[in-house]
Amino acid sequence: MRNSRELDDDVAYQLSEAGQQLRVDSVRCSAAASSGHPTSSMSAADLMAVLLARHLRYDFADPRAPGNDHLIFSKGHASPLYYAMLKMAGAITDEELLSYRQAGSPLEGHPTPRLPWVDVATGSLGQGLPIGVGLAIAGRDLDQLPYRTWVLCGDGELAEGSIWEAAEHAGHERLDNLTAIVDVNRLGQRGPTRHGWHTEVYASRFAAFGWHTIEIDGHDIAAIDGALTAAAEHAGEPTIILARTRKGRGVSAVEDREGAHGKPLPDPDEAIRELGGDRQLSVEVTRPVPDLRPRRFPVSYGELPGFKLGEMAATRTALGQALAALGKTRSEVVVLDGEVSDSTRTQYFETEHPDRFFECYIAEQQMIAMAVGMQVRGWIPYASTFAAFLSRAYDFIRMAAISRASIRLAGTHAGVAIGQDGPSQMALEDIAMLRAIPGSTVLYPCDANQAVRLTAAMADISGISYLRASRGDTPVIYDADEEFAVGGSKVLRSSPDDQITLVAAGVTVHEALAAADLLAEDKVSARVIDAYSVKPIDAATLRKAASDTGRILTVEDHRPEGGLGDAVLDALAAGAGTLPMVHKLAVREIPGSATPAEQLQLAGIDMVSIAAGAASLIAGRAAL
Amino acid sequence: MRNSRELDDDVAYQLSEAGQQLRVDSVRCSAAASSGHPTSSMSAADLMAVLLARHLRYDFADPRAPGNDHLIFSKGHASPLYYAMLKMAGAITDEELLSYRQAGSPLEGHPTPRLPWVDVATGSLGQGLPIGVGLAIAGRDLDQLPYRTWVLCGDGELAEGSIWEAAEHAGHERLDNLTAIVDVNRLGQRGPTRHGWHTEVYASRFAAFGWHTIEIDGHDIAAIDGALTAAAEHAGEPTIILARTRKGRGVSAVEDREGAHGKPLPDPDEAIRELGGDRQLSVEVTRPVPDLRPRRFPVSYGELPGFKLGEMAATRTALGQALAALGKTRSEVVVLDGEVSDSTRTQYFETEHPDRFFECYIAEQQMIAMAVGMQVRGWIPYASTFAAFLSRAYDFIRMAAISRASIRLAGTHAGVAIGQDGPSQMALEDIAMLRAIPGSTVLYPCDANQAVRLTAAMADISGISYLRASRGDTPVIYDADEEFAVGGSKVLRSSPDDQITLVAAGVTVHEALAAADLLAEDKVSARVIDAYSVKPIDAATLRKAASDTGRILTVEDHRPEGGLGDAVLDALAAGAGTLPMVHKLAVREIPGSATPAEQLQLAGIDMVSIAAGAASLIAGRAAL
Repeated sequence: MRNSRELDDDVAYQLSEAGQQLRVDSVRCSAAASSGHPTSSMSAADLMAVLLARHLRYDFADPRAPGNDHLIFSKGHASPLYYAMLKMAGAITDEELLSYRQAGSPLEGHPTPRLPWVDVATGSLGQGLPIGVGLAIAGRDLDQLPYRTWVLCGDGELAEGSIWEAAEHAGHERLDNLTAIVDVNRLGQRGPTRHGWHTEVYASRFAAFGWHTIEIDGHDIAAIDGALTAAAEHAGEPTIILARTRKGRGVSAVEDREGAHGKPLPDPDEAIRELGGDRQLSVEVTRPVPDLRPRRFPVSYGELPGFKLGEMAATRTALGQALAALGKTRSEVVVLDGEVSDSTRTQYFETEHPDRFFECYIAEQQMIAMAVGMQVRGWIPYASTFAAFLSRAYDFIRMAAISRASIRLAGTHAGVAIGQDGPSQMALEDIAMLRAIPGSTVLYPCDANQAVRLTAAMADISGISYLRASRGDTPVIYDADEEFAVGGSKVLRSSPDDQITLVAAGVTVHEALAAADLLAEDKVSARVIDAYSVKPIDAATLRKAASDTGRILTVEDHRPEGGLGDAVLDALAAGAGTLPMVHKLAVREIPGSATPAEQLQLAGIDMVSIAAGAASLIAGRAAL
Repeated sequence: MRNSRELDDDVAYQLSEAGQQLRVDSVRCSAAASSGHPTSSMSAADLMAVLLARHLRYDFADPRAPGNDHLIFSKGHASPLYYAMLKMAGAITDEELLSYRQAGSPLEGHPTPRLPWVDVATGSLGQGLPIGVGLAIAGRDLDQLPYRTWVLCGDGELAEGSIWEAAEHAGHERLDNLTAIVDVNRLGQRGPTRHGWHTEVYASRFAAFGWHTIEIDGHDIAAIDGALTAAAEHAGEPTIILARTRKGRGVSAVEDREGAHGKPLPDPDEAIRELGGDRQLSVEVTRPVPDLRPRRFPVSYGELPGFKLGEMAATRTALGQALAALGKTRSEVVVLDGEVSDSTRTQYFETEHPDRFFECYIAEQQMIAMAVGMQVRGWIPYASTFAAFLSRAYDFIRMAAISRASIRLAGTHAGVAIGQDGPSQMALEDIAMLRAIPGSTVLYPCDANQAVRLTAAMADISGISYLRASRGDTPVIYDADEEFAVGGSKVLRSSPDDQITLVAAGVTVHEALAAADLLAEDKVSARVIDAYSVKPIDAATLRKAASDTGRILTVEDHRPEGGLGDAVLDALAAGAGTLPMVHKLAVREIPGSATPAEQLQLAGIDMVSIAAGAASLIAGRAAL
């Protein structure tokens, strides 16, 4: 039936009945849960009924089939509708539907990939469309497969800037395999949206961003079918279908009324009666083209780059070279950058693998979303920008973890060590931000060879992994064939007489080594640990050092909250027993401009400050 | 001369000479610093020369004059141009100009309010325009003064979604006191921007968002003057001037060339010769209308709300009621919300003080930016949304701290305790995120009376302050007249026999109290501390508890990284001497949906888990 130009009355009636069933099931599961968003589901029910029955190509028995379309509920709170669709498609039972929002059920309040048909978690508005752009790019440029990406958006979320980053990227890329369907029900959580049912406002904007726009009555079955057909057929532009709908459609107690957001219907039984009662419709969803295989890039023999001991090199340079090398041996590795690839050095990858490099311009949220979309399809994305600007996308990183996504983040120009550019460009909260992400890995290399190895290791790390890289050159202190386990550390100085342990990472490793030399002049023996794996941290080595030396001084080019020092304290506290003396050196003031060396000194994290802090601690005083 | 329709040749020549001087000084200070962004300054020099000499109304001797216009460099990297303007206006000397980027100089790599003429720090792109919207709203709706807000943007930063949040807000609000001037020099850091000199692309978009658009040659003095005049005269819409310019304009070695971003010119002396040599022009900037006074709202006698002991109430409800009451006695208090005021309860403020309530819709970055803009003018903004969605604006919060802004954030629906809605709606990283902001204050009340007092206290806290509020009702355990010092804590249970201390905040205070009851049944005496001030934390009370009881168990509805547990560890470590046994209970997995009580139990932070953890710790084992 798909793509037929005309819809006969019988089919239209069946589709309308399917829409009513989706409404009834949305009402039922929300009532069973005593919570949820049935009214936000009911407005989009006709749209989704027509999509599911006539346009989506998806094998619910094989959610990883390469040819499957992708459907993202950017308005994740319409989860009752999504689950009702799963039931109608035969993917879940009615009993499973009614487990909605119960402890242990994968039918969560907002969809997550605990269900095999869900690509990504949504629920933080304005994220589904940007991720859909990533999937559409993957389909056209990486997989080179004919699947379509469909994204159901709410009208309220069009206020999010991330939607316009997505609009720009998709429009400029002419992603005609992407369709956004906006459920313009005119009512947000708190009351009317800015533009109500004025779909022409949204249409003129999306048109200005290069989109094909269609405005329809979202409860007119034939109009919906025509729009979805036109979207699939339109070439050279993404399509947005702006559908005027009524929130709570079909139930007079709530239809188009304020104050009915995010709660079960007041009288579910009466609502179901008004909707024509429960139905037992099922739909046979069109299967995707079988036996498709995603494109993979040819690989060749290749070695990771190596740097000579004593050579000066920036870890960002090593990052870029490692990615370029990794691209040769790993077909799935792709790189995204936020218009700073000359600084992050990911341009080295771009030069060698232009088909797998994606310029995201200055739109960090879209960059992370694109990485999330690409990893849905099995690609191994690295996304890079200045570490400071990853903070722009923190909500996207947070949601990526809930999506159980595996993405690799590289943040360069970390800390005060960047020097003259000043505080706006200095990442000083990034470790705190990334450590707090569940299941994350946080790596912070101090030399180029370590950076190469850790960059390569990230390809095989699940979840959110983060490499913190530095702007300036640092001496190479490890051999090119040295190995660095994730969760490990390196003890760079150690003797039985150690009176204190200096724990450092990144630029402060070199300061700590120099401080140990200064201390040695005063006959103080200091252990030095390179804690390059900040999360997971090498608790065993830290505990042994604490036990051996009794005093720990941590030093980091980061705020004192949530960084290396807190990670060390946590590791020591997690062991049973009493903790040793621990003091932290960190960046406590807001820096200004100065040379890198001056910055370290002013922040009190240079070799002189470390040596002084160590001496104080040994003398039994607080180091601060 | 201002607003004259025609520019005679002599004036045009002088303005062009002024533009050249701004270029020369940009070249000179960047050369002296051996770093900086002269080419990005040179493209906008003519625009700024005309603005400064003929349109800006500003008393550089009195930067806080109420009638002063506001000028924001959203493209903060063009700082050499800004500083050259200050010199030309007589605000700084040539010697001061040449201190650019030196340690100790307030002329930082990107402007910050260490200079009295700078309202806000910029340097993270896409933030200046959103903040400008806040200033323009303040001018029209709060101060009710005729000052204009001028924002210089780069073309590259128009890719940031936050720009479109600002475009939407300003367009919808018809802010005709706001002018954006875009320096379309077509070259980003890494190479060409997406749209090059196609200013019509940007114009059609801004027009679709409700802006008056003007496209000009940004080196045509008369065209610039005409555009700035038209912008100031245009009523009913904000104006955007899209000016086609050439990066590095005037110096052939760099003009319109790639690879010349963010570095001093290769031959500064030759460049200055090519620009016609050094000049000693000064401009007399038009003074603002004198003796203006910003509007203040009438205040009346009012009392903070109080709740009865034992009553059940949500801290978010207390937040809303406290704000409504505060509005009566504090003229400067304003409230912004991200389209969830029914949930955050800031609707109570809106009802009583509609003129001081600002609906920001689902655009958290714009909301924070607006708060930053308003506090520039002396208003006391509170910005509220679900705590989880503050992560959307983390870069704005980070920059607000560098701006030395005083803004109050209220995040509701914190932690797993929200229950069924699931992880996308749960703030579990927010304490980590906010603690890592320099100079921040983080408050987390456990009952309604405490929430009222802390909400009111925030009005007088400098810097970034944050109140974490809960969705569900909790019992009122404090009297309505109890006082809560910022930096304090409350010891809720204490005896000389205490064997362990439970440190909790927010919802876990009630679990800890119940756990203490359970432990008492087993003859274990537990001290209970309500650490409502997470930053600054009450180190003295914690240290005494550690000394008295020897064991500390922290429990928080937050990730284990960067939250209450880390704050406690840090406080104990910062004292000289050996640390006690400390263990943390926190949310370690990604939650699903469940009832609030089930969530606390599944996360291992409910009373039973606390009691079990305490018993383990007392038995000498790790609690985890």
